[in-house]
Amino acid sequence: MNWLDEGALYSQISVFLREDLGRGDITSQAIVARNTRARGRFVAGEKMVVAGLEAAEEVFISLDSQAQLEAFVADGEEIEAGKVIARMVGFADVLLAGEQVALNLLQQLSAVATLTNRFVRAVEGTGAAIVDSRNTTPGMRMLERYAVLLGGGRCSRFGLDDGVLVTSNHLAIAGGVADAVKNAKERVGHLHKIKVQVSSEIDLREAISNGADMLLLEGLPVEEVVRLTAVTRNLSSVVSIECSGNITLQNVRAYAEAGANTISIGALMKSARAMTVTFQIQPF
Amino acid sequence: MNWLDEGALYSQISVFLREDLGRGDITSQAIVARNTRARGRFVAGEKMVVAGLEAAEEVFISLDSQAQLEAFVADGEEIEAGKVIARMVGFADVLLAGEQVALNLLQQLSAVATLTNRFVRAVEGTGAAIVDSRNTTPGMRMLERYAVLLGGGRCSRFGLDDGVLVTSNHLAIAGGVADAVKNAKERVGHLHKIKVQVSSEIDLREAISNGADMLLLEGLPVEEVVRLTAVTRNLSSVVSIECSGNITLQNVRAYAEAGANTISIGALMKSARAMTVTFQIQPF
Amino acid sequence: MNWLDEGALYSQISVFLREDLGRGDITSQAIVARNTRARGRFVAGEKMVVAGLEAAEEVFISLDSQAQLEAFVADGEEIEAGKVIARMVGFADVLLAGEQVALNLLQQLSAVATLTNRFVRAVEGTGAAIVDSRNTTPGMRMLERYAVLLGGGRCSRFGLDDGVLVTSNHLAIAGGVADAVKNAKERVGHLHKIKVQVSSEIDLREAISNGADMLLLEGLPVEEVVRLTAVTRNLSSVVSIECSGNITLQNVRAYAEAGANTISIGALMKSARAMTVTFQIQPF
Amino acid sequence: MNWLDEGALYSQISVFLREDLGRGDITSQAIVARNTRARGRFVAGEKMVVAGLEAAEEVFISLDSQAQLEAFVADGEEIEAGKVIARMVGFADVLLAGEQVALNLLQQLSAVATLTNRFVRAVEGTGAAIVDSRNTTPGMRMLERYAVLLGGGRCSRFGLDDGVLVTSNHLAIAGGVADAVKNAKERVGHLHKIKVQVSSEIDLREAISNGADMLLLEGLPVEEVVRLTAVTRNLSSVVSIECSGNITLQNVRAYAEAGANTISIGALMKSARAMTVTFQIQPF
Amino acid sequence: MNWLDEGALYSQISVFLREDLGRGDITSQAIVARNTRARGRFVAGEKMVVAGLEAAEEVFISLDSQAQLEAFVADGEEIEAGKVIARMVGFADVLLAGEQVALNLLQQLSAVATLTNRFVRAVEGTGAAIVDSRNTTPGMRMLERYAVLLGGGRCSRFGLDDGVLVTSNHLAIAGGVADAVKNAKERVGHLHKIKVQVSSEIDLREAISNGADMLLLEGLPVEEVVRLTAVTRNLSSVVSIECSGNITLQNVRAYAEAGANTISIGALMKSARAMTVTFQIQPF
Amino acid sequence: MNWLDEGALYSQISVFLREDLGRGDITSQAIVARNTRARGRFVAGEKMVVAGLEAAEEVFISLDSQAQLEAFVADGEEIEAGKVIARMVGFADVLLAGEQVALNLLQQLSAVATLTNRFVRAVEGTGAAIVDSRNTTPGMRMLERYAVLLGGGRCSRFGLDDGVLVTSNHLAIAGGVADAVKNAKERVGHLHKIKVQVSSEIDLREAISNGADMLLLEGLPVEEVVRLTAVTRNLSSVVSIECSGNITLQNVRAYAEAGANTISIGALMKSARAMTVTFQIQPF
Repeated sequence: MNWLDEGALYSQISVFLREDLGRGDITSQAIVARNTRARGRFVAGEKMVVAGLEAAEEVFISLDSQAQLEAFVADGEEIEAGKVIARMVGFADVLLAGEQVALNLLQQLSAVATLTNRFVRAVEGTGAAIVDSRNTTPGMRMLERYAVLLGGGRCSRFGLDDGVLVTSNHLAIAGGVADAVKNAKERVGHLHKIKVQVSSEIDLREAISNGADMLLLEGLPVEEVVRLTAVTRNLSSVVSIECSGNITLQNVRAYAEAGANTISIGALMKSARAMTVTFQIQPF
Repeated sequence: MNWLDEGALYSQISVFLREDLGRGDITSQAIVARNTRARGRFVAGEKMVVAGLEAAEEVFISLDSQAQLEAFVADGEEIEAGKVIARMVGFADVLLAGEQVALNLLQQLSAVATLTNRFVRAVEGTGAAIVDSRNTTPGMRMLERYAVLLGGGRCSRFGLDDGVLVTSNHLAIAGGVADAVKNAKERVGHLHKIKVQVSSEIDLREAISNGADMLLLEGLPVEEVVRLTAVTRNLSSVVSIECSGNITLQNVRAYAEAGANTISIGALMKSARAMTVTFQIQPF
Repeated sequence: MNWLDEGALYSQISVFLREDLGRGDITSQAIVARNTRARGRFVAGEKMVVAGLEAAEEVFISLDSQAQLEAFVADGEEIEAGKVIARMVGFADVLLAGEQVALNLLQQLSAVATLTNRFVRAVEGTGAAIVDSRNTTPGMRMLERYAVLLGGGRCSRFGLDDGVLVTSNHLAIAGGVADAVKNAKERVGHLHKIKVQVSSEIDLREAISNGADMLLLEGLPVEEVVRLTAVTRNLSSVVSIECSGNITLQNVRAYAEAGANTISIGALMKSARAMTVTFQIQPF
Repeated sequence: MNWLDEGALYSQISVFLREDLGRGDITSQAIVARNTRARGRFVAGEKMVVAGLEAAEEVFISLDSQAQLEAFVADGEEIEAGKVIARMVGFADVLLAGEQVALNLLQQLSAVATLTNRFVRAVEGTGAAIVDSRNTTPGMRMLERYAVLLGGGRCSRFGLDDGVLVTSNHLAIAGGVADAVKNAKERVGHLHKIKVQVSSEIDLREAISNGADMLLLEGLPVEEVVRLTAVTRNLSSVVSIECSGNITLQNVRAYAEAGANTISIGALMKSARAMTVTFQIQPF
Repeated sequence: MNWLDEGALYSQISVFLREDLGRGDITSQAIVARNTRARGRFVAGEKMVVAGLEAAEEVFISLDSQAQLEAFVADGEEIEAGKVIARMVGFADVLLAGEQVALNLLQQLSAVATLTNRFVRAVEGTGAAIVDSRNTTPGMRMLERYAVLLGGGRCSRFGLDDGVLVTSNHLAIAGGVADAVKNAKERVGHLHKIKVQVSSEIDLREAISNGADMLLLEGLPVEEVVRLTAVTRNLSSVVSIECSGNITLQNVRAYAEAGANTISIGALMKSARAMTVTFQIQPF
Repeated sequence: MNWLDEGALYSQISVFLREDLGRGDITSQAIVARNTRARGRFVAGEKMVVAGLEAAEEVFISLDSQAQLEAFVADGEEIEAGKVIARMVGFADVLLAGEQVALNLLQQLSAVATLTNRFVRAVEGTGAAIVDSRNTTPGMRMLERYAVLLGGGRCSRFGLDDGVLVTSNHLAIAGGVADAVKNAKERVGHLHKIKVQVSSEIDLREAISNGADMLLLEGLPVEEVVRLTAVTRNLSSVVSIECSGNITLQNVRAYAEAGANTISIGALMKSARAMTVTFQIQPF
């Protein structure tokens, strides 16, 4: 499932390139002779799980279909500082034009993959899965989710249209867990699993008795998760439990051991600090 | 110059909404009665310079032109944790559908504005300006630059097409500072200022004598900046100096005092950790 | 859940209008005085469940935001031949320009709603739901699904991205029910229900024991459905059964009584013969 | 003239694929190994005139430019039930992703070609041409017209912009045949033929004397067509006569023999019931 | 028929504005206070037939729906130098941003209308119509044709798809007038008039005897036009004659008097020198 | 810097082709056998500097990637009447479909290049550069600027977003040269050169003392330019002077000799009369 839709990638990259290139790279047009060939190297500035190589390659290929990237590592691989990630060969003006967009992608997607990987390792052996959320950078969801997969995480629903999650905000409007779950079950339950946020044992019992498939425990302390998991398991062997909210590398294992099947971590995208990657160009 | 192009904003927001909504919010369709009216409050979870209110408002208005946002603070204002930023009034399904995109924008743009603001304060009184770079999140440059302005920063060129910057990568190809600056000056110098990265005194002298308008000192220690600034001032009173590379809140003032006119900070976008903002919905 | 996404509807209608109008209605431009006001009436030529009124209205409003449609029946209502469905008031050239697209939509969507409704009535009281399939007219899925809902049917997944269905073609490639269900369960089972086509009791037992949520019995005779339903119920009370393939108004009730929870009918769209609806225009 | 604009076909197919694929085929992603090669066969389930092969091929090629379709019959050929229409070779996930859209196109376009062909045969030898109308499925006009041509029919105007037809609705507004024809003749008559709907001998005489090139007899009984054709031929040898309205396979020959030059049949598209075509996939 | 499709106009104007504005007017952003209101006047610098006012208005309205244009003349009116054409009221930054695009449109479309009008007057009373050609500025055909209509001209086919013209280049390929006309007549003659370029009496007789509706005499001297018109009139009273090629204000009347029904003039667009129009802005 | 962005060119050409082709070339479809190969020659009808060959080639390649253009001259070369510019080889229907768009581009771009070249020659040896303006045909700026470069001219800013020019209209709003220049300098002066229109010596002194980089002298007589240049040179050796307004081939050298560094000529585009170029097609 570690895939990137090529058509969608291609069209995103064109948007990113248009943003940066506008009407063209006036510096290179002024000082670089046309048809000068060059090579460039992407070098890791720190330890990281690499993500975004396919995207970086697409940046240059979008500018010139003859550009060639030779990768020395694969997306998803963990590397040390100093490692040469890939080598580009192509026209100098193409390398200069694509440099910043390619770097921005590599730096930010590797950050997501690396951070995800740290969470995944923190829960190793517990059986819990680390999953992303819709807390993504606007416009970057496809790529950021891809980076989560590369880091060893799993994906939650892509958008509001391919999964049901009844949050506390829905409950404030829809009037109680029982009705909300019942309606969701009846109207889209033949198609979708019903996930519902519960914040008390009463809610939890109502959710399960009305047919919820998954429970979301949001922002609860570990002990409460332990307790509610026990209640749940008494009632059903198939209902799944997800935790989220204020989960850190420090406390994530405790949640996993408390019985969470999935742990959703918004920080995967929004707290991932860009990795250091550089791009050095040389003539032939 | 603190502006957002409304047409461009509108079309970005539609892309962001389409990403999150896809074919529609199936949860609300299943459990929320149509035409239920509701209100929601955005609340700051920590101290921050707010940015993205106009964008958040556009999210809801794009979904329903009758949705109304009442802001209690202005974009660019600094607020404390707990402050209610704004109140939304509209249909419940509209509030639920726009919630995540609006939060993602507010959280991330406020992060950029807040971090920028910390750098701006760090150099207060030195005369140096904090400027952004092209180290932005792909697809978010317009919004992230806007957040930089709100934080008190200044903008550098938007893309490769509206400014000339000769980097070390260009020099590797174009063969030396003298030729590069001469060519740039001759070919686009009647239109654009010529900025060139220099890493030695020789380069610097070549750049100035060939007519460079601005010098970029990238990744140099403060003492070297002090020295090169002195050399520059001996040669010209109008050539401008920019520093960048590994500049932090700790060392930024030293660079400002070393004589930099502008200090370009890639971390403004890529190391800005999303601020905590919540959105709570209630029925009327 | 009987809704039409207004933005999506609007953009579909523009495509349909551009197809028919091209560079403009040269007949009206030549013979109709500009700003002549007129009125038009949509009249049912036969008994039908009406669908498409909202779409027809959007056709005229897309041409002139002042055009007004007064509906005498609601989408989803069953009416007799001769009934005036709605009245349009607007500029004559607008009524003439939108006539054919509006009629095409009303005639074809009403056909889908009417046929769906006949199937729904045929299974009344059995508890089985009539659902659509992806056997839709290319480009018309949103509208045709809407017509299915108006006729009393339910919708299956919109596309390949919002639901899992393992068909016999998948099984030919993926190598057996057990592996396919196991992999689907493991990789997307925390998000989606797993539906799998089974054609024998062995398949069925493998599917259930590996965690399938729904079984598709495709093209099987009623007696076999009776038998397999019994086997299923012995194994699980929650696994759902869907029938499809060669199901007609004559035999649909038998399938429902055989124990199918949902009956998927490709013919809802592809065998629906357009209803007769006419549009008569008059000056004021 | 039996052509399909490749650019237009390509862009329609992408719309159709996006509709069905959305963010991707989650079933295949979960259970089909990447790079598994497979082959598939399209088989006719009943006798039909094939149409849509070029479109079906484009579906798979849009997903993977290496996919290969080997056709065993040509678009426009009549085949018997059981005939293998074409064989696809490509990646399994590509075949599974394109299957439904390709089938929908083949089934529906073959239906149009087959029905058209039955009408064409019914009037064989009379000299009358079977022509389509603007009574098409919204968004499918180019493809449905192509199927009409494959079935042996001829096309009428594509849209409102490339031909003049004064209908009874126009006449209700424009005030009488004489004025309408005169104005049309004067304003666009140097470019276009003027076709006008006439429902009486008086109208017919007015139309001809004002320069109409073609007459449309809509919904008239055969005897009236015989009579009005005779009147027309007395007045002009070049004015052309078209019949339409309630024309069936049973009565079409009578209209042709009554003297109609062209017979326009809305049912070509709207009453064409999708043909049975299946697609069976196998691994290598 | 003097109309502009509003949707098409709107989308053209956005393209034009995006071309000129790019990411925004950096001059006004730097020096004009937001929300400053201003007024501007369009003044004719020479005698002209005005065209483009509707387009100019759309420019400003696209930038700000509250902008208001008060026109003192109508599109198509002839005015003297010094005449104030229209007054704009709106925000200063909007007036400054739209100025150049609006001027470019007014100056160039008025040029087309004015030149057309001079040709129309030159043939007054002869019964010949001045018509445009496909010799238009790429991307501007709709607007330039509109200007031709405003100048009193008539339009020929919009593009290759809404009319048949067999040129000498077609004949070089299609092998002789007889075959070309016969094929065209048979394949699209029930829909379209057949126009064919003839360069000799033999061609002309072949064209007419095979059913051509219109003859194009391209680049022939007036005397030859006189002669061929006489031949034509002997053969048919309805076949129409068009002249084109090297027709000037000096010789156009001679061609009209020679019997041409329509005179097609490529220079209407390509030799029209932009009119002088100025735009002066003032604060309130 | 004589370049054309291929992606941008490609997308412009598709717009131009769609405008002319609409739903397809009905004449060729009716009378030209598919797959007939042909060749065509572009021939210059008068002396000219050729521009647009790359664009013309793209027209045919957009229609059929196998079409081949063999150029006998290069873009930017000056040729005599009668010269064969290029030869096309391809399918006859492709040559016929692309003919008009290719000719329109060649005729109009060569006109711009030729006229520019005449101005460039007129100032030869004076050191002044001929530059274009934003007085371009809407939608054609990229191509027209390219033609200016081919004629030996230089380009000014592309749009309002990549350069600062304070015009008299700005000054009317912004309140005087001093403030306008000061604000521009402060807000975007670290990025852009500040060009300001001055119409008096007082303005000129204010502009220079506030840091303007370039002065625009618009519509002033030569003697005044001489005088103001002298004043400028007394104050600064680096401030650049641009003249524009009513500059003709007759007076341009006088302005150059008066001291203008750049001379901006709106007429380059708007008064360029299309060159005569023909396209003759033959079968093989």
